[in-house]
Amino acid sequence: MNSTNRVVTSLQNPKVKRLLALQRKPSERDAQGVFVLEGWRELGHCLRRGLSVEAVYYCPEVAGSEHCLSEIAVPEDSVWLVTPEVYSKMAYRGGTEGVMAEVRFERLRLQDLRLSPEPLVVVLESVEKPGNLGAVLRSADAAGADAVIVCDPRGDLYNPNVVRSSLGSIFTVPCVSCSSEECVAFLKGKGISILTAQLQDSELYYDTDMRPGSAIVLGSEAKGLTELWRRAADAHIRIPMLGELDSLNVSVSAAILLFEAVRQRRPAALSG
Amino acid sequence: MNSTNRVVTSLQNPKVKRLLALQRKPSERDAQGVFVLEGWRELGHCLRRGLSVEAVYYCPEVAGSEHCLSEIAVPEDSVWLVTPEVYSKMAYRGGTEGVMAEVRFERLRLQDLRLSPEPLVVVLESVEKPGNLGAVLRSADAAGADAVIVCDPRGDLYNPNVVRSSLGSIFTVPCVSCSSEECVAFLKGKGISILTAQLQDSELYYDTDMRPGSAIVLGSEAKGLTELWRRAADAHIRIPMLGELDSLNVSVSAAILLFEAVRQRRPAALSG
Repeated sequence: MNSTNRVVTSLQNPKVKRLLALQRKPSERDAQGVFVLEGWRELGHCLRRGLSVEAVYYCPEVAGSEHCLSEIAVPEDSVWLVTPEVYSKMAYRGGTEGVMAEVRFERLRLQDLRLSPEPLVVVLESVEKPGNLGAVLRSADAAGADAVIVCDPRGDLYNPNVVRSSLGSIFTVPCVSCSSEECVAFLKGKGISILTAQLQDSELYYDTDMRPGSAIVLGSEAKGLTELWRRAADAHIRIPMLGELDSLNVSVSAAILLFEAVRQRRPAALSG
Repeated sequence: MNSTNRVVTSLQNPKVKRLLALQRKPSERDAQGVFVLEGWRELGHCLRRGLSVEAVYYCPEVAGSEHCLSEIAVPEDSVWLVTPEVYSKMAYRGGTEGVMAEVRFERLRLQDLRLSPEPLVVVLESVEKPGNLGAVLRSADAAGADAVIVCDPRGDLYNPNVVRSSLGSIFTVPCVSCSSEECVAFLKGKGISILTAQLQDSELYYDTDMRPGSAIVLGSEAKGLTELWRRAADAHIRIPMLGELDSLNVSVSAAILLFEAVRQRRPAALSG
């Protein structure tokens, strides 16, 4: 291997253009079947999951002495060194990790999900902000949820802001995108209780039995849940608002509800 | 009143410079006793709390037709119209609300706090990101917490990002900044249980009695809690991590713990 061939020094290099297009355009990600991540932890999660890493871009000057390439197991011929100037162009939203990668993905479908006997699932309808979806994935990982299902999404799962804000949980929590109708049919078919988070006509969430298989369904912050979900619900559940504001961040709501399920279920692994 | 005098059209206007300095410099906020907010809801919370609004800057073109100045009760002679160009300079992080205000504040001290008989308090040690503090305030409002106490802060309570991310809860939840030593002495003096969130040597949070007066203490995301807090604790409590990642966002952790206290206490106002 001639290592001088493996350095990207020009902003005009087609690799730079490809990586930027993959970050900016969902259509490009779908066409290539590849998305982009930044960060050492994220790359580690990816590799542990056995995802195929197609290219790694490494900038030692940005990464600093804390990290080096030998800590990750990727084939040498997929690694490219980049200059700080090129890196700052590639990590176009101010990335400071010093490592980026192109990773192959396959979109999971509902029927691909392997669920535990009493599943705990989060459903997000029309989530608006990529950062919120990433944060929900992080809470779902912590609570050991079986899956996150995103219905009628306004954005793409592999949006760079979702990937970043998930801190790697997009690789650890199975995540499916589908229509609300498909999702309702799937949950009903599996006998999973549909618990919709809504303020009206609802019971307190901690009075709801979440020990059987449960899907916690949350709407968009601006508009809440659509009528389709409210009608499909087995129970409407409410987090009490005891202050003067009338809403919580969707990822905070998801976490409160998920951990109530954890509390009720008292996983055996945690006792003693 | 000559209304033409009440329009700010120049970026060189001293009012623009003053407002920018108040946003950027904690020292300027302290010197003037004034902070800056943006947003209609935020301004409404401020006015309902009886805070003194010293100046309002309103840009009809940015606010759009959804909002108009008549919805807020401020004296005419404190209102200034600004051009879109001036507004976009003033709202220097991309604000889109069309209204900003300078608001007088007095810093609360521990002895100013009026607590309920069995208080529920959040303590944050060395919180790093203003957005996290704002998000904790939002959760504290929802859970009806008595106060948020910020110990050894790395930033200022009235940082524009705290104000913005709190969505107004900085005006609804009493918030004090002090040293960890002062805070420990205060809590011990009031007989409030100190519950430190930490993974080591800890019990599951839902096995901890939070019905008596409780302070939920959370450390920085990077470093956790200092030894001072661990030693001062009446109980060490842990949110179980059931996934592959090993941490939750501090505002998510605060919300899970606060709402466990709400569940255990079952506020009478919520029954029936």
